[in-house]
Amino acid sequence: MKIAMAQMEVIPGHPDQNTEKILSMIEQAKAEHADLIIFPEMSVPGYLLGDTWEQSSYLRDCEDYGRDIIAAAQGITVIFGNIAVDWSKKNNDGRVRKYNACFIAQNGKLVQPAGMPYPYIIKTLMPNYREFDDTRHFFSLQKLARELGKTTTEMLEPVTVKMCGRDWRIGCLLCEDGWSDNYEIAPLEQIARHQPIDFYVNISSSPYTLGKNDKRNRVFSAQAKEAGAPLFYVNAIGLQNNGKTIYTFDGSSTAYSGQGNICAVSPEYEEDLCCLDLEALNTMPALPVDNEPEIAHIYRALHYGTKHFLENIRMKRVVIGISGGIDSAVAAALYTDILGPENVLLVNMPSVFNSQTTRGLSLQLAQNLGCQYMVIPIQEAVDHTVKQLTTTPMTLWKDGSTSHLQVSSFVLENIQARDRSSRVLAGAAAAFGAGFTCNANKAETTVGYSTLYGDQSGFLAALADLWKHQVYALAYYFNEHVFGREVVPQGIIDIVPSAELSNAQNVDEGKGDPIKYPYHDYLFRSFVERWQKAAPEDILTWYSEGTLEENLGCAPGLVKQYFPTAKDFIADLERWWNLFCGMAIAKRIQAPPVLAVSRRAYGFDHREAQNGPYYTRRYKQLKAKLLAE
Amino acid sequence: MKIAMAQMEVIPGHPDQNTEKILSMIEQAKAEHADLIIFPEMSVPGYLLGDTWEQSSYLRDCEDYGRDIIAAAQGITVIFGNIAVDWSKKNNDGRVRKYNACFIAQNGKLVQPAGMPYPYIIKTLMPNYREFDDTRHFFSLQKLARELGKTTTEMLEPVTVKMCGRDWRIGCLLCEDGWSDNYEIAPLEQIARHQPIDFYVNISSSPYTLGKNDKRNRVFSAQAKEAGAPLFYVNAIGLQNNGKTIYTFDGSSTAYSGQGNICAVSPEYEEDLCCLDLEALNTMPALPVDNEPEIAHIYRALHYGTKHFLENIRMKRVVIGISGGIDSAVAAALYTDILGPENVLLVNMPSVFNSQTTRGLSLQLAQNLGCQYMVIPIQEAVDHTVKQLTTTPMTLWKDGSTSHLQVSSFVLENIQARDRSSRVLAGAAAAFGAGFTCNANKAETTVGYSTLYGDQSGFLAALADLWKHQVYALAYYFNEHVFGREVVPQGIIDIVPSAELSNAQNVDEGKGDPIKYPYHDYLFRSFVERWQKAAPEDILTWYSEGTLEENLGCAPGLVKQYFPTAKDFIADLERWWNLFCGMAIAKRIQAPPVLAVSRRAYGFDHREAQNGPYYTRRYKQLKAKLLAE
Repeated sequence: MKIAMAQMEVIPGHPDQNTEKILSMIEQAKAEHADLIIFPEMSVPGYLLGDTWEQSSYLRDCEDYGRDIIAAAQGITVIFGNIAVDWSKKNNDGRVRKYNACFIAQNGKLVQPAGMPYPYIIKTLMPNYREFDDTRHFFSLQKLARELGKTTTEMLEPVTVKMCGRDWRIGCLLCEDGWSDNYEIAPLEQIARHQPIDFYVNISSSPYTLGKNDKRNRVFSAQAKEAGAPLFYVNAIGLQNNGKTIYTFDGSSTAYSGQGNICAVSPEYEEDLCCLDLEALNTMPALPVDNEPEIAHIYRALHYGTKHFLENIRMKRVVIGISGGIDSAVAAALYTDILGPENVLLVNMPSVFNSQTTRGLSLQLAQNLGCQYMVIPIQEAVDHTVKQLTTTPMTLWKDGSTSHLQVSSFVLENIQARDRSSRVLAGAAAAFGAGFTCNANKAETTVGYSTLYGDQSGFLAALADLWKHQVYALAYYFNEHVFGREVVPQGIIDIVPSAELSNAQNVDEGKGDPIKYPYHDYLFRSFVERWQKAAPEDILTWYSEGTLEENLGCAPGLVKQYFPTAKDFIADLERWWNLFCGMAIAKRIQAPPVLAVSRRAYGFDHREAQNGPYYTRRYKQLKAKLLAE
Repeated sequence: MKIAMAQMEVIPGHPDQNTEKILSMIEQAKAEHADLIIFPEMSVPGYLLGDTWEQSSYLRDCEDYGRDIIAAAQGITVIFGNIAVDWSKKNNDGRVRKYNACFIAQNGKLVQPAGMPYPYIIKTLMPNYREFDDTRHFFSLQKLARELGKTTTEMLEPVTVKMCGRDWRIGCLLCEDGWSDNYEIAPLEQIARHQPIDFYVNISSSPYTLGKNDKRNRVFSAQAKEAGAPLFYVNAIGLQNNGKTIYTFDGSSTAYSGQGNICAVSPEYEEDLCCLDLEALNTMPALPVDNEPEIAHIYRALHYGTKHFLENIRMKRVVIGISGGIDSAVAAALYTDILGPENVLLVNMPSVFNSQTTRGLSLQLAQNLGCQYMVIPIQEAVDHTVKQLTTTPMTLWKDGSTSHLQVSSFVLENIQARDRSSRVLAGAAAAFGAGFTCNANKAETTVGYSTLYGDQSGFLAALADLWKHQVYALAYYFNEHVFGREVVPQGIIDIVPSAELSNAQNVDEGKGDPIKYPYHDYLFRSFVERWQKAAPEDILTWYSEGTLEENLGCAPGLVKQYFPTAKDFIADLERWWNLFCGMAIAKRIQAPPVLAVSRRAYGFDHREAQNGPYYTRRYKQLKAKLLAE
């Protein structure tokens, strides 16, 4: 019995292309004499489609292509994921009933799973956290069981399939069904009650998250071992998005033996047809555990995600504003790695506030990468804008009086930032047949330390799910592992991070950003990425208990070093919390899409409302106590 | 027995302010000798909070304020909505268990509802469509029943409360519990099985949608009549948002008699304590049905929503770029109505392509409204940008070769649009201590007929949920009903809509937008607002059947007038569908927040992925057939 795990690229919203791929992989598997081929969850329609699920014509089209796949199941058994529609019933939103389903086809027909009222298996558990909206669109097996007056245990039976002259009993799960820790039922355990079971299949559509594969291996190894039967986890590769947040799918399809060993793993981010002899599985050696550093995984996700995003929107060239700082330098390295130096135009846009140091570093970066390079000074345009704004009379027609606008130094900072992005870069990008990039990191994005329509803009924020320390780690990774030479100049790594928008941010005098990254990276992370999100009450509690650095995960001693007194500490905390809940949300609403790598990315993954900052009663009490001490 | 419906403004994310309001309304109700006061759903925490529900400190704080309200229930019975937390249990996402709950307090203590395992009533039905994400955060009564091995019927009993010396049996529902048409159970019917019931209460947090109140009156009148008992619907007023989409809450709290008559309605968008004598309810006359035109409701929602949004972000002044076209003129009227003319700066920014006609109309608009007014020409800045881009050498450092960028007429159009918004308006707004507005309508927004960082930008898109014909209707409404004189000049209403970014858009020659609003408004609406969303397959099917205009709801005869042949029709359809699914999504991702009034607004209400356009197999077949005819 030969099983083929078909780790295919699923293109969301394009059932025609996905079906073509499925049909070709079926042929390939047949050529390799596979008896069974397994495709990922939602391999026909794709998974992250927004509200496209509300288009009836799209649903009919997916059903139609599904029939082509069923017809092609000749001389091989095919397991695949697709949307299943019951046109006679309704979802709770009043729209047509839709199931996230697993189909098993053989001899041009569907195999009827025992326990199910339809000729397919229905997903039981519906993820509804982070970027997942399953409950919005799909009717779960739990709801169906309740509607039919049955229990899920009755409905969750193994499917009996005749292959190689005998009956095989397969436990079929869809993605979240294998992650049942926090649900009231565990589908795998329910199925396991109906012994014997020859093996389990988990068809998935599981986006990449840093560290998730380690956890999945622990969970699924234990499941296979507990069940005493092999488990085939088949995941898609590709790029899917929810508009604001873009996810890579790394595949990493894995075969677990009945002893819980990892016997085979398909490579990350590559299409792969992995053929395995079921009988040989239990004697195969366990594969060594992945011990690559985190930054290698991040690099791979960013490279794959950015490359595919560019391909999807048919963008072959980019323009990058480079300041001589770390974020734009790493962005330049990333895009040059993907598109080649001739397709990357780096633009340095000095004003009177930009030092010779950063101008020189910008040129050096361009030379190291071999890119296209231009210097377009902005001072003349900025001066013209200030002159127009301040000398044009403003008439109040109510009474005919006139006055003039004034431009403060803060207003001037933002005029510079917008001039660079919306005037120069956007114009240069259009002329170069390109898009321009947003080079923001996650720390800046958290507190909106950026200018809207200025450095906050661009077609993609490829680095916006990386904390500043990860951006530095990536710079080293590009130099050491990707290019094998210093492309990001050491001077850029060493210089103080600064926006250089005023004399107060003079890098040659060591002046720079108000964000102290070694501490704030970790403080901000606790606002967004912690399991139960941290808020000022938690932070101040930890501070008062002396456990703050431990809870945040930053280096010990920093808090005392940066904030001599409780008053300093509280002022800093409130400054950033006010921004995080205030202006930064307004900016994120209009920010470019973010490429997700962390356990919680901005956009659709971390949902937020423009409600302004809030401080709890306990926070206020604790603050009063600390300030009185 | 005197019942007070407390239609309060709920401020999302600010339990301290909400509790203060609740406590003051309790005092007011006591002064009016009410026996029972009813507050809206989630009146302590607010409802649309994004993922703030994941902050433990926020949950604790809401519990804490809830205790204050319970303590204040002395000499009066208080029904209020709050988040309820079971710290010992988990939601399906592994986070702490949260219920959307209704509390009844009396004599400083909670009344235990029969059937419930907690001292509060748990919401049964969880809306998970449009902007609603209830399932993401709240554990439903259905799930709890399953966990406890009970049925929802057992748990849904009326609550017995002693008031005025006798026991009253109250059926308590939370918002969606009263909208059970598409769910497998109807909570009101479940409760009604446990007779006798004296009256029903539905505490709601229900955002305004055009036409929703008519439907609610039909549904709730029928429920009260069917149950033969009065029903008190108490809704919040205020402004809540999901980041990208902003909702007004209109209140419109309503008392229905046991005959299904509407006996009392609190005014839209006003705080109101409506005290009613329960016994007198059945003899009160039915109120006349609302027969205001749609545009009056739209005006009220926009005025309230925009005014409150400005207050929330503490913005007292705005800058509006006015072109002499209808959208910016209506925006100018709206903001002047709200802020007064001295706080609204209108800026006209002509280039060589702008006609004397529109320049004159802009001035006339400013004079009619009495606003602040400036004319800042952009030609010099645009010329400088083009010169910099085209004369600065671009060096390819890979080989040292140099070349120059070219600026096409299309690139030049976008340079103008960005120059106006990101350079002039953003600068002027910062100098004026203001934000600048986005004046986009829904038709433009649908197909991205706008420039990113140009006319697509601003702090709020107040008109972006209005189709072009609604913008015109609003112009008339401002002139006739709000200002009572012509503030939007008739010339602006009459002129052809045009961007005036090139000679091809010369208004004096009658040339303008490629969007034919009398048809495209309705075509685009079918993509977004239809119950099952229309896609090209549906459109082409209707076209071939001759039922298109009827299905879209536009004027008959338009299709033949605009598109003499099937080829013309299909080219137009694909042009806009490609934009709707392509570049327009990229633009919407970075667009300002939208004020929602329709049944489906852009943003969090209509979720979308940047997956590119798709045409189904049936569409392609039908197209081939039509083109062959």
